[in-house]
Amino acid sequence: MKQGFGQLVSLQEAKKILNNFIIKNENEKITLHTALNRVLAEDTKAILDVPHFRKAAMDGYAVTATKTFGASNTNPKIFHKDEYADIATGAPVPKNADAVLMVEYTEKIDNNLKFYKAVTPGENIITIGSDIKKDTLLFKKGTILNPRYIGVLSSQGFTEILVKNKPIIAYFSTGNEILSLDETLVEGKIYDINSFTIKNSILNNYCDVINLGIIKDDKNEIKKMIMKGIEKADIVLLSGGSSLGEKDYMVEAVQELGEVMVHGIAVKPGKPTLIGNVKGKLVIGLPGYPTSALSNFYILIIPLIDNLLGIKRKSRCIKAKLSKKIVSTVGRYEFLPVKIQKETAIPIQKGSSAITTLAEADGFLEIDENIEVIEKDEMVQVQLF
Amino acid sequence: MKQGFGQLVSLQEAKKILNNFIIKNENEKITLHTALNRVLAEDTKAILDVPHFRKAAMDGYAVTATKTFGASNTNPKIFHKDEYADIATGAPVPKNADAVLMVEYTEKIDNNLKFYKAVTPGENIITIGSDIKKDTLLFKKGTILNPRYIGVLSSQGFTEILVKNKPIIAYFSTGNEILSLDETLVEGKIYDINSFTIKNSILNNYCDVINLGIIKDDKNEIKKMIMKGIEKADIVLLSGGSSLGEKDYMVEAVQELGEVMVHGIAVKPGKPTLIGNVKGKLVIGLPGYPTSALSNFYILIIPLIDNLLGIKRKSRCIKAKLSKKIVSTVGRYEFLPVKIQKETAIPIQKGSSAITTLAEADGFLEIDENIEVIEKDEMVQVQLF
Repeated sequence: MKQGFGQLVSLQEAKKILNNFIIKNENEKITLHTALNRVLAEDTKAILDVPHFRKAAMDGYAVTATKTFGASNTNPKIFHKDEYADIATGAPVPKNADAVLMVEYTEKIDNNLKFYKAVTPGENIITIGSDIKKDTLLFKKGTILNPRYIGVLSSQGFTEILVKNKPIIAYFSTGNEILSLDETLVEGKIYDINSFTIKNSILNNYCDVINLGIIKDDKNEIKKMIMKGIEKADIVLLSGGSSLGEKDYMVEAVQELGEVMVHGIAVKPGKPTLIGNVKGKLVIGLPGYPTSALSNFYILIIPLIDNLLGIKRKSRCIKAKLSKKIVSTVGRYEFLPVKIQKETAIPIQKGSSAITTLAEADGFLEIDENIEVIEKDEMVQVQLF
Repeated sequence: MKQGFGQLVSLQEAKKILNNFIIKNENEKITLHTALNRVLAEDTKAILDVPHFRKAAMDGYAVTATKTFGASNTNPKIFHKDEYADIATGAPVPKNADAVLMVEYTEKIDNNLKFYKAVTPGENIITIGSDIKKDTLLFKKGTILNPRYIGVLSSQGFTEILVKNKPIIAYFSTGNEILSLDETLVEGKIYDINSFTIKNSILNNYCDVINLGIIKDDKNEIKKMIMKGIEKADIVLLSGGSSLGEKDYMVEAVQELGEVMVHGIAVKPGKPTLIGNVKGKLVIGLPGYPTSALSNFYILIIPLIDNLLGIKRKSRCIKAKLSKKIVSTVGRYEFLPVKIQKETAIPIQKGSSAITTLAEADGFLEIDENIEVIEKDEMVQVQLF
């Protein structure tokens, strides 16, 4: 039985449906040593001043500034033993000193210090809290911990931090024509691509993956695999089988197991996308075409992950000049892969069946539903991959 | 005994010395399933056409185009059983057909096909090799394998690929003042930061790390730890102890174990950097200050890794307007962290002892040795982190 799409929903509506879907995500405490690329689960304040003591910025001698006044190259002065203290960079400045004379401007003669330069009060001293003030907000929850941020947390002596659990996403490809890499290629068959692009995109986006492999166009097989997925994972993704072909059992499978919330999104490419609820878990059917599956990953799944984990990503946008006029369809959001060359954005329009489209692209344009034409040489915002 | 810097070398010379240092790096075969973020070790050509058969781009009927000519909405035509064949998207097009009629423009009446549209030869057919032509270069060696590239490789049925071994870099912090996170903070001591920033920067840059912890300012301890590092790792990094302070044993340690090739680089921050050769292995002493250690990681260690693995990185540069006039020192390369706000680059000038400098920055400017002033509002190139 053929089956048409339901009412197409807009990308905004589809995102709203995804964001309103309740997905359980707990927090966990981990040691700072394993924090790379994890997502902070709470606003994190400084618990220490940094530095937490007055600190020498240079190697030299701790002194009282006023007593150095007048010293110069042509008029050196001398401090006796009790008027200065040796100090190394980073060491605490003694209470009675208020400046550090750099070693370069001094000469030691027995226990006396001859110096050729005056210093001002505070010179070469790093004050308490000048780098980080206790109780100030260091990082908001949702921050992805990079090496530099982890360095700041370590300065505070945090042994453990609270991060979001990594969501577990299960994935499988469907299609009688899809071969795994260990099978022999014959006419009409193609090697599985989506397992590789989707699995690795999940891993690159702060989640864990369960790769469930490839299954045939068989409703019962699809149902079995969805059930296997929801048992172990927070979200189940699959690809293929949600077009209008005769053998598209994905919709029926989800309908029989639960509820189809969306079947068809007004986006190009990527229209044949399904959003379902199976026993309280989100099941998302991506198109079979590699470019469509992956573009939907960018526009639907990454925002879903960001919403679930509260991730605030830094925008990775650049401005570029469009190399040619683009005509788009009103009422349909378009994801347009582009290559960047010398600040020019060159659209890659190979059709969604091409697998090289996204490999050649450096990023993509998002063309809103209400835009019909973008003229050549217009400045556009490119989302970099 | 105090010890001055040797002749300062320029950043270019230091990089040349690093690049000329022979570091053994082998290749290894891995399965495509574990290829994410690995570095391709050989130019990789297509071994298959993609698609490798003529493929339907749409669900519909395989037909002979010339026989459809004249059909339209107002003038439908009819094909009998032997004049068309059912075809699904992605399926092979039969030899005697040269176009696909989309299902949307047809109506089945018993075994006859009524259709309302003419098609041109080749319409809705994806030709052999139109996406990837056999024998064309897919990726150059040195390519970092992202999800999209791995998708292309999977379309070729590559079960295994040849990648560069991950270099192993050992790291330790030195300094009597450095505490590990499980110790109690007292005046004059600070928590270890460089272990966290450097370790995670190594992991983020396609290498494995051996974290050797923290050791005191003790020449014999440093020597022992360097020997431990070179036994297991390809490169040894350490930080702290290469300034002019009294307790800087790093230079002596390397001198006694092997050869100091560079002691002092004309860069700001990061001058007190040491490059040594211990029993044929590269030993690099980074400054103790967190910002200096990490900026040297960006300007020295990342280029070293890229050279070793043959990595061709995509430039992550953006243009921005400088928010204020910058004065730099002629004869010294400057690494200037900046924050980006509304296409303006705002320098962060907290001094190299601050640990928040790089956490607040979005990237950095590279100010060459021969540049003294960059004016406010000048357009500058910002290297994004």
